Amino acid sequence: SGCCQIAIIYDENMTDTNTNMRLKLPITCFILEIILIILFGVLVEYDKETDAKKWHHSNHSEYDNDFYYRYPSFQDVHVMIFIGFGFLMTFLQRYGFSSVGFNFLIAALALQWATLMQGFFHGMQGGKIHVGVESMINADFCTGSVLISFGAVLGKTSPVQLLVMAVFEVTLFAVNEFILLSLLGTRDAGGSMTIHTFGAYFGLMVARVLYRPELDKSKHKNSSVYHSDMFAMIGTLYLWMFWPSFNSAITAHGDDQHRTALNTYYSLAACTLSTYAMSALTADDGKLDMVHIQNAALAGGVAAGTAGEMMLTPFGSMIVGFLAGIISVLGYKYLSPILESKLKIQDTCGVHNLHGMPGVMGAIVGAVTASLATKEIYGDGLKDVFPMVAPDGRSASSQGGIQAISLAVTLGMALVGGLLVGFIMKLPIYGAPSDASCFEDSIYWEVSSKKLLETSKLCICPQPKKHCNYTTGYVEFKIQTSLLQTEQYLILPQDGSVSPTIRCQRRLYVHS
Amino acid sequence: SGCCQIAIIYDENMTDTNTNMRLKLPITCFILEIILIILFGVLVEYDKETDAKKWHHSNHSEYDNDFYYRYPSFQDVHVMIFIGFGFLMTFLQRYGFSSVGFNFLIAALALQWATLMQGFFHGMQGGKIHVGVESMINADFCTGSVLISFGAVLGKTSPVQLLVMAVFEVTLFAVNEFILLSLLGTRDAGGSMTIHTFGAYFGLMVARVLYRPELDKSKHKNSSVYHSDMFAMIGTLYLWMFWPSFNSAITAHGDDQHRTALNTYYSLAACTLSTYAMSALTADDGKLDMVHIQNAALAGGVAAGTAGEMMLTPFGSMIVGFLAGIISVLGYKYLSPILESKLKIQDTCGVHNLHGMPGVMGAIVGAVTASLATKEIYGDGLKDVFPMVAPDGRSASSQGGIQAISLAVTLGMALVGGLLVGFIMKLPIYGAPSDASCFEDSIYWEVSSKKLLETSKLCICPQPKKHCNYTTGYVEFKIQTSLLQTEQYLILPQDGSVSPTIRCQRRLYVHS
Amino acid sequence: SGCCQIAIIYDENMTDTNTNMRLKLPITCFILEIILIILFGVLVEYDKETDAKKWHHSNHSEYDNDFYYRYPSFQDVHVMIFIGFGFLMTFLQRYGFSSVGFNFLIAALALQWATLMQGFFHGMQGGKIHVGVESMINADFCTGSVLISFGAVLGKTSPVQLLVMAVFEVTLFAVNEFILLSLLGTRDAGGSMTIHTFGAYFGLMVARVLYRPELDKSKHKNSSVYHSDMFAMIGTLYLWMFWPSFNSAITAHGDDQHRTALNTYYSLAACTLSTYAMSALTADDGKLDMVHIQNAALAGGVAAGTAGEMMLTPFGSMIVGFLAGIISVLGYKYLSPILESKLKIQDTCGVHNLHGMPGVMGAIVGAVTASLATKEIYGDGLKDVFPMVAPDGRSASSQGGIQAISLAVTLGMALVGGLLVGFIMKLPIYGAPSDASCFEDSIYWEVSSKKLLETSKLCICPQPKKHCNYTTGYVEFKIQTSLLQTEQYLILPQDGSVSPTIRCQRRLYVHS
Repeated sequence: SGCCQIAIIYDENMTDTNTNMRLKLPITCFILEIILIILFGVLVEYDKETDAKKWHHSNHSEYDNDFYYRYPSFQDVHVMIFIGFGFLMTFLQRYGFSSVGFNFLIAALALQWATLMQGFFHGMQGGKIHVGVESMINADFCTGSVLISFGAVLGKTSPVQLLVMAVFEVTLFAVNEFILLSLLGTRDAGGSMTIHTFGAYFGLMVARVLYRPELDKSKHKNSSVYHSDMFAMIGTLYLWMFWPSFNSAITAHGDDQHRTALNTYYSLAACTLSTYAMSALTADDGKLDMVHIQNAALAGGVAAGTAGEMMLTPFGSMIVGFLAGIISVLGYKYLSPILESKLKIQDTCGVHNLHGMPGVMGAIVGAVTASLATKEIYGDGLKDVFPMVAPDGRSASSQGGIQAISLAVTLGMALVGGLLVGFIMKLPIYGAPSDASCFEDSIYWEVSSKKLLETSKLCICPQPKKHCNYTTGYVEFKIQTSLLQTEQYLILPQDGSVSPTIRCQRRLYVHS
Repeated sequence: SGCCQIAIIYDENMTDTNTNMRLKLPITCFILEIILIILFGVLVEYDKETDAKKWHHSNHSEYDNDFYYRYPSFQDVHVMIFIGFGFLMTFLQRYGFSSVGFNFLIAALALQWATLMQGFFHGMQGGKIHVGVESMINADFCTGSVLISFGAVLGKTSPVQLLVMAVFEVTLFAVNEFILLSLLGTRDAGGSMTIHTFGAYFGLMVARVLYRPELDKSKHKNSSVYHSDMFAMIGTLYLWMFWPSFNSAITAHGDDQHRTALNTYYSLAACTLSTYAMSALTADDGKLDMVHIQNAALAGGVAAGTAGEMMLTPFGSMIVGFLAGIISVLGYKYLSPILESKLKIQDTCGVHNLHGMPGVMGAIVGAVTASLATKEIYGDGLKDVFPMVAPDGRSASSQGGIQAISLAVTLGMALVGGLLVGFIMKLPIYGAPSDASCFEDSIYWEVSSKKLLETSKLCICPQPKKHCNYTTGYVEFKIQTSLLQTEQYLILPQDGSVSPTIRCQRRLYVHS
Repeated sequence: SGCCQIAIIYDENMTDTNTNMRLKLPITCFILEIILIILFGVLVEYDKETDAKKWHHSNHSEYDNDFYYRYPSFQDVHVMIFIGFGFLMTFLQRYGFSSVGFNFLIAALALQWATLMQGFFHGMQGGKIHVGVESMINADFCTGSVLISFGAVLGKTSPVQLLVMAVFEVTLFAVNEFILLSLLGTRDAGGSMTIHTFGAYFGLMVARVLYRPELDKSKHKNSSVYHSDMFAMIGTLYLWMFWPSFNSAITAHGDDQHRTALNTYYSLAACTLSTYAMSALTADDGKLDMVHIQNAALAGGVAAGTAGEMMLTPFGSMIVGFLAGIISVLGYKYLSPILESKLKIQDTCGVHNLHGMPGVMGAIVGAVTASLATKEIYGDGLKDVFPMVAPDGRSASSQGGIQAISLAVTLGMALVGGLLVGFIMKLPIYGAPSDASCFEDSIYWEVSSKKLLETSKLCICPQPKKHCNYTTGYVEFKIQTSLLQTEQYLILPQDGSVSPTIRCQRRLYVHS
């Protein structure tokens, strides 16, 4: 006997016979992108601020191009979509590649499809959809809604399933947006209704249809580790910092954009304090919970999405944010477990708490604020915020009523839409993971085996040449023979296949 | 005997009877936020570029709204505050949640309180504080000062203590800023004095008062690991990239903003080269030190904070940055150990080297540059940079003298203020960590136990059924029975409590 | 006998007698920076929008300063250079400090040197180089080219070698840019030729000259781990999001900037879908490869670099992006191994696939699009995009021919330049790493030993006082004596030197 050292490295990478994407994903991506390219070729044109001829046709300063007044907002929104949403979802310990990678994929698809759908519904001119910075912002907004729904089903869906969801959800989003903004004359600059409420309840309904009774099999992966929580904070902070840009991105120029950004900023600041307070208060040991900080601190941005452009005042904005943070933490703590156990909704990211309830709250705040609008408060600015009211339109209280009806319409569209799309997504053709392989990157991604060294297990075999029983895996043995060199031995099963019994080889032992 | 494998997972999560935040943190947050909301309700109004009625009262292009000329700068500053400062401090191995999380909390409080304090001192109109993008930038600036002080006490304070510090420091910051900018007519666009010098010396004095003679007990956690240094580089780079926006955010429109950004950019570039040079030169083995790169490379931005808006020229800016990098590395290498051993100042992040000395240097450069200002150099632009000098005001050398006096005032305010606030923070009521639990997330945060697997220890018990002695922790045993399943056994102390002796149970053994 | 536990912590930090930077790096940095400062003092002046006197000399609105129309683009480009390129290269498991740190260093040098070189070639006025936001953008562009070349030699060069490369490459870049943009009148707004093709082929030629036949010695470090791939995705996403700003940063104001951003955005979106499709299709098991997602999804931005400002239409942009993604993945999968085995080009980051081939493709697309330009399509905007064509200049097909010639010139300059500079870099004076210490941070950086704990190995010595044989390293033993305290023992070789035999000391054993 003597000093010896062997490492059993379990192959953490999983294979799931069902999840091979070799044909499904390329076929889906190619077909969708080729359809998109053809439709763009037929239907899409530069708008008059993007087209060389049209822009130079009229006489104006180059600086009057809307690019200079919308593009910085667009870039902030773009960062929220790809970094914000993408990294917010990396909190899962073994799902970082998928969180940020599938977020990237479905966002890249959704923004193209949204350009077509929104262009189609929001008024084509001469049979053409006109694109520019405003269509880019609107497409990113619609994409945001899809990514919210992604949060509800995170870890439990294949990329093909997600692409299918994106196509249908974008379409329904555009219909709902058309009903609200164009038919009803609803105001919803930051999308408390159109984006957050719609995306959340759509996603929750999909999650309900895709309910997995035996999801406990992968429960140990449905949680965070230290570093994954750090990555998620990158997402949180970008969402938090740029939410004022999000809510103000498509409001009217001038005071409207300025005010919307300011209101959102105060709402978020107040929300952050109430989130920290509630997170400590609801924990037995008073310890803060990263889930709350990462998510509930953002609820103030959601809740200011409708009323942000209105004369909500900093005072009103802070009250809204303060309450949104409280509601959101309470949701994570007490409502989410009930949703799962009673309503069978497995909401991975808790989108109901971050986007659902705060979105509904934002819609109500918007309806109330709209109904209180007067010429005294808004002056000549009334026409920018409420074009249907000023100067000779509907009354402010009618506008408030329309806002409330719009919430109901949105909820209805989201729930019915999510139900239908959920059933489409439930078809067993998309390569969805099994219950045991949920929340796991390695079924869809090449994951470096180096990762495994960090969780390596060690085992001693004191008797050379005897047999050791292992149920799986292989035995690896390393001797560092010099500072720069390591010799490595692998013990494979004798017949070369994965067998439960492997023989310890002699060279494994270092005699003392 | 045979092959067996057990893992002892030490519970790295610590409990400190004193640090329970269940009541302290919620009460503090709620009281502060409710006071803020009430004061905002009473005192704060939209400014004339944010208010619908006021903006539409006068006749102008929507594009003339200051939102379009300040908001991109604001967003860059905002990123520096939340991502830049937040992640810069994540270099500690077990303090990432607190670094980025407490940074988030105290920044969210400080920006609200700063809006009130700065509004109060900088001139209320009609009894009201008027807010818009400029107040947002100024509030973020003041917040930056608090976060600098946070760096000096990082790891050694409770969140409640930090909130208390923020409230007092913001107030004193506003007083000092009022004395300098309003009473003395000092120029300090990027805040070499008001932000950096003030924040650093205030924080150093607080750290002096809170001196912990037995901090060595947690010494092993007061250092970085590989990944934490990578996260910190995110903070460094965002601070570095956006510092030109920071220094130019509130300078006069036109050439002034343009020039300030340019000067800062050159100062930082030169500073980076001297930092790398000094870091290698001061190491015995010539290896670069991440602490220097993460911090000293930023000193060029601090040192260009006052003179950045002046006609410093690219040449002058580069000399300033070059010297700032050298001074800062020398500070980290030789001065910080002396500060700790002789002056009993435990400066966790070395804010004296990044903000203190470069801030003083920036103030002096500003005073010299101001005293050399002439109509020949500045032309009609003199009134933008030195409104007190041009056209019929004080002489340039007087302005230089005022600048020098302002540095002295700032140092005095910071040191006296830090002393007083340090004593307030020393009261034993805030749940501060014990000496042994400093630099540790798990006393204030729920930290996933999954983290522990990565540093798991393994132990062999060759004799089944015998007793093993362990001083603490529990024994965990895992057998992977198939690719998808792991059986897990826990050995707890016989009486269920944490006892120094635990019995190895039979099922732990896999006989060969 | 009994339970015992000892940890052998191999010192992963490497030393390489050749790589000591204590004198080489400081001397290089100081000499270069002092030369830069002197040349800036002699040659550089504020331009007319940055200089207080000149700006105020003429009569205009402060808002007409180009700062407001270029600076947001500049900041996006700046983020791409420092965060985008820096983090994209952190995918290597033990080279994160160097990737982001050397990127930082050589970018800080290159942007200063580029300001001088580009200013010198692009027309000095009155013997002076004039700087402002446009020179800042151009300097960042030139820096981008150097960082592309860095990608080809990543892990195999010393920082001094990289600084030398930067100085020469920036100079040649400026010459090539002068030939194309000034002499030939080539259009290349986003730099498909000047930046990407030049940087890639220059770097590939340098890599060819620096070919290491025995690089297999460090093969095990030339790969990613889970967390390093997550950090790399930060770089990817920032490059992807801000590429529209990159391509449009120096195009003409108005519709041109607007259109360029829009075209690039569509090209990237389409490229992302084809990248995911091809990544799954080319894998035997259909699993996505992070290398493809991190890199090939960006090829659409490269390929839209020349034609992006032209009337490419969204339709055309999407086709370009779609094909670029396909070409790039195929390059990573099939061409890179051939480049290494047949042409002896060890291209660490695969810059040939991300910048080389898509750059050439972008140049060709630009030539074709230019040759199709007509007054019907561009209207009066023709003079903005093709000043040499409109109104009475060369024909569109001549412009197309010039574009094609420019590609050939660029390839020639890059290959010959890379060859020459490669030989300069091959001189054995820069402290380059040995073949076995490539892709390793610890030869140039202080790397915390804490990192080692995570991959610690454990060993049992059942017989106290007996000798154990180890080939290297030291033996560490830890007992956690209470929740807050750990006692640590180190067993060093008896004579204090690194010897192959160390004695197990008695206190190592915990008797059961």
